[in-house]
Amino acid sequence: MRPILFAAAIAVCAAPSFADPLPSWAETDTKAAIIEFVERVTDPASPDYVTPADRIATFDNDGNLWAEKPVYFQLIYALERVKERAAEDPSILESDMLRAAAEGDVEAIAEGGLEGLLEILAISHAGMSVEEFQDDVRAWLDTARHPTTGMRYDAMIYQPMLELLRYLRDEEFQTWIVSGGGVHFVRAFAQEAYNIPTEQVVGTAGPTEYVDGKVMKLPGIDFVDDKEGKPVGIDNSIGKRPIFASGNSDGDFAMLEYTTAGDGPRFGMLLHHTDAEREFAYDREGHIGVLNRGLDEGPDRGWVIIDMAEDWLRVFPE
Amino acid sequence: MRPILFAAAIAVCAAPSFADPLPSWAETDTKAAIIEFVERVTDPASPDYVTPADRIATFDNDGNLWAEKPVYFQLIYALERVKERAAEDPSILESDMLRAAAEGDVEAIAEGGLEGLLEILAISHAGMSVEEFQDDVRAWLDTARHPTTGMRYDAMIYQPMLELLRYLRDEEFQTWIVSGGGVHFVRAFAQEAYNIPTEQVVGTAGPTEYVDGKVMKLPGIDFVDDKEGKPVGIDNSIGKRPIFASGNSDGDFAMLEYTTAGDGPRFGMLLHHTDAEREFAYDREGHIGVLNRGLDEGPDRGWVIIDMAEDWLRVFPE
Repeated sequence: MRPILFAAAIAVCAAPSFADPLPSWAETDTKAAIIEFVERVTDPASPDYVTPADRIATFDNDGNLWAEKPVYFQLIYALERVKERAAEDPSILESDMLRAAAEGDVEAIAEGGLEGLLEILAISHAGMSVEEFQDDVRAWLDTARHPTTGMRYDAMIYQPMLELLRYLRDEEFQTWIVSGGGVHFVRAFAQEAYNIPTEQVVGTAGPTEYVDGKVMKLPGIDFVDDKEGKPVGIDNSIGKRPIFASGNSDGDFAMLEYTTAGDGPRFGMLLHHTDAEREFAYDREGHIGVLNRGLDEGPDRGWVIIDMAEDWLRVFPE
Repeated sequence: MRPILFAAAIAVCAAPSFADPLPSWAETDTKAAIIEFVERVTDPASPDYVTPADRIATFDNDGNLWAEKPVYFQLIYALERVKERAAEDPSILESDMLRAAAEGDVEAIAEGGLEGLLEILAISHAGMSVEEFQDDVRAWLDTARHPTTGMRYDAMIYQPMLELLRYLRDEEFQTWIVSGGGVHFVRAFAQEAYNIPTEQVVGTAGPTEYVDGKVMKLPGIDFVDDKEGKPVGIDNSIGKRPIFASGNSDGDFAMLEYTTAGDGPRFGMLLHHTDAEREFAYDREGHIGVLNRGLDEGPDRGWVIIDMAEDWLRVFPE
């Protein structure tokens, strides 16, 4: 063993963690339920003990690890990129949808459905290598600011969830993102924002092509990692049923159902956005992050509902 | 830290590994090149040091981690299952191709191309949940025997590669399988055979569907993880360019090219099947595991060619 590894092992040996793993969570039933579950599945003496290899936890991203209002941040990125490219070459605005994109007309885009969205993504998300695309996303994150908070988008991540991710990893869980957002988009910041490596990010994916040493992004969408697509994406990338799933909208219902349908100890959790003061308050209405079925059926299914206003002592990192 | 973890940490601290990590490899240039590369990228003082997070190694499976003659073992499984189902219900043999499958006529199937293969896979690999399919594969592995060696198929794995996988993992590499074989098929035995968890297996994939708490396998093929598909599969599942890639056929050429086209230290390796006595000898001709371009261009690209007869002291585990 090399000295640096030896030192790391000593450091691990010498650092028992008696501190509260979830300091930004209020002392409510929600926090108690999380800790009770984690202790139950990690205690070798527990009948519900789960080996580390099977400690798979999956997290939705938009509205669950970071904010999603007024619209998905990836859409804001896409619209800004269309606008910039149209400024260089106005001839790319070949359709009403692309003109709406260049004008930032989110309402028109929401009404344009999937076809309109694909036109926008074909210009903002295709025609470059994966590496170039991710460099571009990171460059955008460095300069873009949220329209109402004025914050960096990647600062609008939830401090309590960062603590939960870390707590789970400390307890030898794998923490995966399973996002309706684009897999390459989320990977561009997941390591920095959440300490989650690219290989533990599952997301919506377009076609790609290998050419001359590079993987190029092509227009279109091959796989939508939302609703019933989430269990499919989990099976495809992880190949194991999670024991812990965390989401915030009905797009996550199937993921929680799949997770909690397995044998043995299971944990499903939904984040209810109840905090208009510190973040946003929304649930049953709108285009983004709609939560109906989860609120109606979740409690009877044993899922924990996080009440953001009550359960979180703070929302964003300092 | 719990006692069991503490004990594990102590054990790690107390076990320096001065032993030969590759005892089944002869003392040739091949072995020296592998060890030189691993030491160079893991030594923090080396200019070529690579952080553990980027130590991604990818391995082809058929003909690289286990044997692939006379035909891919997955095809043997598929044919046996078609035959069994036809014995229960002969009406399923609706085409010449399915009749050929039930008769085990591999030549006819090879000539039938992709369409014929899809008919066979639709019967042998679809219409059940992923878990049921994998239970079935494991049950097959428990009883099936190789036609010429009489061995279990999952005993025809290569001992030198098992040592290499372990050596790389001991040096904090991630060892991924990137196989032209079906992802669910390979996952059924990868943990047991190679100590590789399901989430580090990438492969050819058919469509699946989430229904009532289960992920069901449907007929068809969505993604072929071979040739130019391998870099695409790597990007899709790992999201990082490997620094080490190991294959044995021209189906792996693009994976090795993609791997070694990156900046910094890179390692590409091809297994040349030169050992008719202990395994099989084949390269430029045939339907399975053809290796032409790799032999022609590999050495000039700096790729290491394993000569099985010369470089391996033994082939299969005892």
